Amino acid sequence: MSARLDWMISVDDHVLEPPHVWESRLPAKYRDVGPTIRRDDAGEAWFFEGKRMPTIGLAAAAGKKREEFSPLPMTYDEMRPGCYDPRARLEDMDRDRVLASLCFPSFPRFCGQTFYEAQDRELGLLCVQAYNDWMLEEWAGSAPGRFIPMIIIPLWDPMLAREEIERTAGLGAKAVAFSENPVPLGLPSIHDRDRYWEPVFAAAAETGMALCTHLGSSSKLPRTAPDMPMIATIALQPINIASTCIDWLFSGVLPRHPGLKVCLSEGGIGWIPYVLERCDYVVERQGYWASKGDFEGDLSSGEAKLVEGTGAELGALPSQLFRDHLYGCFIDDAHGAQSIEAIGVDNVMIETDYPHTDSTWPNSMAIAHERLGYLPEDVQFKVLRGNAERVFDFTPADLPDLAGP
Amino acid sequence: MSARLDWMISVDDHVLEPPHVWESRLPAKYRDVGPTIRRDDAGEAWFFEGKRMPTIGLAAAAGKKREEFSPLPMTYDEMRPGCYDPRARLEDMDRDRVLASLCFPSFPRFCGQTFYEAQDRELGLLCVQAYNDWMLEEWAGSAPGRFIPMIIIPLWDPMLAREEIERTAGLGAKAVAFSENPVPLGLPSIHDRDRYWEPVFAAAAETGMALCTHLGSSSKLPRTAPDMPMIATIALQPINIASTCIDWLFSGVLPRHPGLKVCLSEGGIGWIPYVLERCDYVVERQGYWASKGDFEGDLSSGEAKLVEGTGAELGALPSQLFRDHLYGCFIDDAHGAQSIEAIGVDNVMIETDYPHTDSTWPNSMAIAHERLGYLPEDVQFKVLRGNAERVFDFTPADLPDLAGP
Repeated sequence: MSARLDWMISVDDHVLEPPHVWESRLPAKYRDVGPTIRRDDAGEAWFFEGKRMPTIGLAAAAGKKREEFSPLPMTYDEMRPGCYDPRARLEDMDRDRVLASLCFPSFPRFCGQTFYEAQDRELGLLCVQAYNDWMLEEWAGSAPGRFIPMIIIPLWDPMLAREEIERTAGLGAKAVAFSENPVPLGLPSIHDRDRYWEPVFAAAAETGMALCTHLGSSSKLPRTAPDMPMIATIALQPINIASTCIDWLFSGVLPRHPGLKVCLSEGGIGWIPYVLERCDYVVERQGYWASKGDFEGDLSSGEAKLVEGTGAELGALPSQLFRDHLYGCFIDDAHGAQSIEAIGVDNVMIETDYPHTDSTWPNSMAIAHERLGYLPEDVQFKVLRGNAERVFDFTPADLPDLAGP
Repeated sequence: MSARLDWMISVDDHVLEPPHVWESRLPAKYRDVGPTIRRDDAGEAWFFEGKRMPTIGLAAAAGKKREEFSPLPMTYDEMRPGCYDPRARLEDMDRDRVLASLCFPSFPRFCGQTFYEAQDRELGLLCVQAYNDWMLEEWAGSAPGRFIPMIIIPLWDPMLAREEIERTAGLGAKAVAFSENPVPLGLPSIHDRDRYWEPVFAAAAETGMALCTHLGSSSKLPRTAPDMPMIATIALQPINIASTCIDWLFSGVLPRHPGLKVCLSEGGIGWIPYVLERCDYVVERQGYWASKGDFEGDLSSGEAKLVEGTGAELGALPSQLFRDHLYGCFIDDAHGAQSIEAIGVDNVMIETDYPHTDSTWPNSMAIAHERLGYLPEDVQFKVLRGNAERVFDFTPADLPDLAGP
């Protein structure tokens, strides 16, 4: 096997922010209400604007046995240092043969929901900017070519979000965390006829930064029922990203922004061939009447009403839009890996999900070889590294000089 | 190719009920409020308890061009007679090489929601029974061995539902229409700790009748947003059945009822290998903590609370529960057909969806051969007929003596 297949770029990992991220960067007047970690009688937690938010064990599971995984709070002392310390993270990456890593935030949540929920909008924006500056300067900046810097945006103000994308693009940011579905957050959908998100999409397309929609970034677990077991919800989460995928394919956004790239982070990939085929099937069969306008109400009750002038504008078949704009991202997905040629060899990237419970660390490379080994070497390289380098316009560091695993 | 592969059993078609179903079977005192078809200034519609419910074109699209498909009302005169007349239906089945067909109701909706919504519970039950008797005596009874009789149940009363299952089992019924998710109907979920549905599940298991959960039978379209285009919702519908599948696998119901069979009607199959793999992955990784109890609240916010004594009771790995109890049903699904051996050759059945817009009629057999031709003949036979004969304990008529297509 070629040595160039010995390292991967993981496009979905997680950083547990050290407390100084905001303590050291917020103006003095916000030091008391800005995010900080404190201990109280109930244990250790983040505090922000008077709210108490513990970190949970499931979010910092690297190095733990499965019997130790827990949704209950965990302290930073109990975590593996790679969770929060970039130097320790690099050691863990080297051990796992991860050449570079794109990390999602933890305290801000997957796309910055925590700061969107801030009472003080000015503070919220400063917290967003402090995270982004820390990510660029201290996390990614600590080891050039080893971290793909992703930013968060002020979700409540698309014009400010546009400014933040443009500001950080100039500082080397490569990706923007975006919600799998903004509606449960109380924000307009990507279908919004007033095009609330247009400044964000335009800025992402113009700067070449990819949007990354991580599962869970709607702050809403996909529950079929109030009493659906939590474990069933967790099983459903990635398949729920199929909704995000379908949203994008039918949103009309993609044809308006030829350069826009959307990564379905931690969405798995085994469902993608079916979804693309289904979307094309529906367009071919239902496209004629659907192009005349949208219908409100329950079709099966016979009570649907045509809303004039709302026809879907696809621009191309959904499968083509997928290949031009969307990227499936997977941790360990045997059926998906077998389906890479059906999905599109340029549209799949690998993840290790360090330090979450689904992570393959420290066996990611062995698992990847087992899943991908049947593919031609150039395709393996694309999935392991090449697609990430292209999608994020990212040049990784030279291969570290390490002994074999 | 073997002649035994020239005919299929379709486990998902639809009957548009003729108006006499209820007119001829309800007691005289209910004739005025029972379901009937009338014309008024707005056109033709069903009337029931004073409510007006037109039939829509999308539900009776057989023989129409795609340019004629419409979610607006359609009259019975405009439909192909095979929609509502069993003799005409048989001709259409013969033309499509459909040896036998399982039909879902239309006016009652996919699992009888219309009668569940009735103001008068006594009338609702009589309407359910009238439909079932008509299905058994007049629709299926018109051509023995050509229709697999499926009944609807009084969703509002599981004990009455149990009686209806037992009553109709004795009359030859083979399947029970059940909801893809009862929660949007205002009914308990299948996870219900009080086991609301237990009499239904027990009766189905004891009589050997299969539950068929058709997409759309929650009366709720899977919308990510109020402004999600209708065509995107239609594309999402089958993938939404993945939620139904996961519900069943984690419900604890299947291990309690070894004989229970659940058919994921019109759910497609291409997503199944991914979902089974995902469910097993989650159980192997999260099973330990999840078995201790369920957690309420948003895990990612650190605010989840353990609910003691609510641990999931799976009984077996989800992939094994699927193989023992669940059946994927597909119309035309190339990736799914390629994945039949991964799904399980005994767990897949074919559908034609006559007379809906997704139907393959009158080309079902040619499409099926194209999709399945790569499989061993015994597997092709299972998917085309054998699995349906086993799951529904159904003996089809001798092959009709027809000229070739």
